Amino acid sequence: MHTTKVAEMTAFSTLTEFKTLLADMPVADTEAQKAAEARNGQLTKPPGALGRLEDIAIWYGSWRGTDRPSVGKRQVIVFAGNHGVTAQGVSAFPAEVTVQMVANFEHGGAAVNQLSRVAGAEMSVHALDLDTPTQDFTKEAAMSEDDVVLALLTGWNAVDADTELLVVGEMGIGNTTSAAAIATALFGGAASDWTGRGTGVDDAGLDIKTRVVAEGVALHAGADALNVLRCLGGRELAAMAGAIARARNLRIPVILDGFICTAAAACLACAQDGALDHVVAGHLSQEGAHGKMLSELGKEPLLSLDMRLGEGSGATLAINILVAAVECHSGMATFAEAGVAAG
Amino acid sequence: MHTTKVAEMTAFSTLTEFKTLLADMPVADTEAQKAAEARNGQLTKPPGALGRLEDIAIWYGSWRGTDRPSVGKRQVIVFAGNHGVTAQGVSAFPAEVTVQMVANFEHGGAAVNQLSRVAGAEMSVHALDLDTPTQDFTKEAAMSEDDVVLALLTGWNAVDADTELLVVGEMGIGNTTSAAAIATALFGGAASDWTGRGTGVDDAGLDIKTRVVAEGVALHAGADALNVLRCLGGRELAAMAGAIARARNLRIPVILDGFICTAAAACLACAQDGALDHVVAGHLSQEGAHGKMLSELGKEPLLSLDMRLGEGSGATLAINILVAAVECHSGMATFAEAGVAAG
Repeated sequence: MHTTKVAEMTAFSTLTEFKTLLADMPVADTEAQKAAEARNGQLTKPPGALGRLEDIAIWYGSWRGTDRPSVGKRQVIVFAGNHGVTAQGVSAFPAEVTVQMVANFEHGGAAVNQLSRVAGAEMSVHALDLDTPTQDFTKEAAMSEDDVVLALLTGWNAVDADTELLVVGEMGIGNTTSAAAIATALFGGAASDWTGRGTGVDDAGLDIKTRVVAEGVALHAGADALNVLRCLGGRELAAMAGAIARARNLRIPVILDGFICTAAAACLACAQDGALDHVVAGHLSQEGAHGKMLSELGKEPLLSLDMRLGEGSGATLAINILVAAVECHSGMATFAEAGVAAG
Repeated sequence: MHTTKVAEMTAFSTLTEFKTLLADMPVADTEAQKAAEARNGQLTKPPGALGRLEDIAIWYGSWRGTDRPSVGKRQVIVFAGNHGVTAQGVSAFPAEVTVQMVANFEHGGAAVNQLSRVAGAEMSVHALDLDTPTQDFTKEAAMSEDDVVLALLTGWNAVDADTELLVVGEMGIGNTTSAAAIATALFGGAASDWTGRGTGVDDAGLDIKTRVVAEGVALHAGADALNVLRCLGGRELAAMAGAIARARNLRIPVILDGFICTAAAACLACAQDGALDHVVAGHLSQEGAHGKMLSELGKEPLLSLDMRLGEGSGATLAINILVAAVECHSGMATFAEAGVAAG
């Protein structure tokens, strides 16, 4: 295991400093990876018979710096934010639902509470300035630099240093609109390529949403990846990006959730090559463009169960898949130990 | 909850009696199903946002007779058998590996041991007369009627009455050959449509295996579904079929594993319409024809992770998906309870 040092409360104070930090992050331990590959080849199963479980276990070991890892503390953090762009009528739910759902998370009544329990994960929720929504990105930048840096730091500081597996999720009425705008700005194509029904807008709502995404992308054209996050994102997206970056800093593997979480992560990947090497995709969301975004990032989802809830729900459901992979890798007998003929 | 009565040790003594029993099995509780659907519509999430988790939870409740189920005791049973057809050179591993792997299961060293622990399941292994392989099905029926009935009963009696979720798995060098022959006999088409590489035979081995499957199917043409199981199956396949039938008798939902488990289950489905209504497919195996067999049975797998190990590994990995679905369904707050606007 690698030792880690606790971050200062203010690891960065500008987007430029954050970008510099991203460029100087730890990488996977190739010796641990080779040792884990060697161990995998000796386990009592035909070669490759555990499929993707084998790859995930080796990858996890490479980040934790050991050929025989275990998954200790699992942390699920849900960030919530409100979006000025909801004034444009882009969601099937009213903006008040964000704060109502935060209370539901706090009282244990949401899906992600149940899923965290099944995954053996500690869950927390961080509400980011819900009384002051971000600006409407069709009129101006969603956030100032100070505002986005504060949100990034909220995420950065929310990750516990003793966490061994991280999931970040979100709640924020209007945030699939924000995520679609980020994806369009980062990866190009038409707004309609990236805009979907979110929590369930009708055809007329989808038309409005697509127009709003196109307007926002046009207004903020030319922004670099971190300024895309600032101009089109929301505080909960920036906080997720900050937490994913902090996890990298601490060599903690991360499971990505759905469309919005992936859009937040994509800002890191586009700001710095390899910034998501410590990240695996938890699931394929039913939100149409999620698969396209994962392809852009070179990530193959672990699950595909037609989920589209957010909250970190798909990623939290995938925790036990990763844990099972690691338990097989580290707990199985070798052919020699078990006295089994190796074929 | 429905009360269940403990089976006599000999619930049937001929294939005809077993078939009669299959025709008189309990069905899902439609009132519980409707109540579970109503509850699902009130939970704090957009309609349908938990995707397949919603369907699975409602289905599980309908079999357990309650709109708010929980998943108590989870039982994983691994059956092992040896196959006379291995004399034809159909496997990449020697037949001695079956007994060696049984010892590995007993000592906790196999993949399914680790997966059962992560799933919170009780695991047991039943070795079926390993010293006396079944007959080579290219020469005669693999089993006599007494032999197949004894294997069915072994499975039937292995299921605990207080189990609330069942997985059956297998170990048996040569048993993908048996499963391919069963699939060809039940569903038609060429032997090559259903024959794959199993634990990893090379091209020459695959040619032999395909020829062996075709010979067996031709020799036993015209057998009904339960006699297909007798003539082309193995003791571990018959035991899995017996356990799946017993679970239905006790209203215990079952998660199917891969190619061999599904072939065993298919004999029940072809013997009696609806015999697998209490069964969900745990995963899609990398063994090529598994998806085709699941399609024939109208089952959509929960996971697809390129696994092809058997032992019940894929189904055991899927246990926590089902548990998570049920925990969301039964543990989440309703809109009214949480004071969340319903959109």
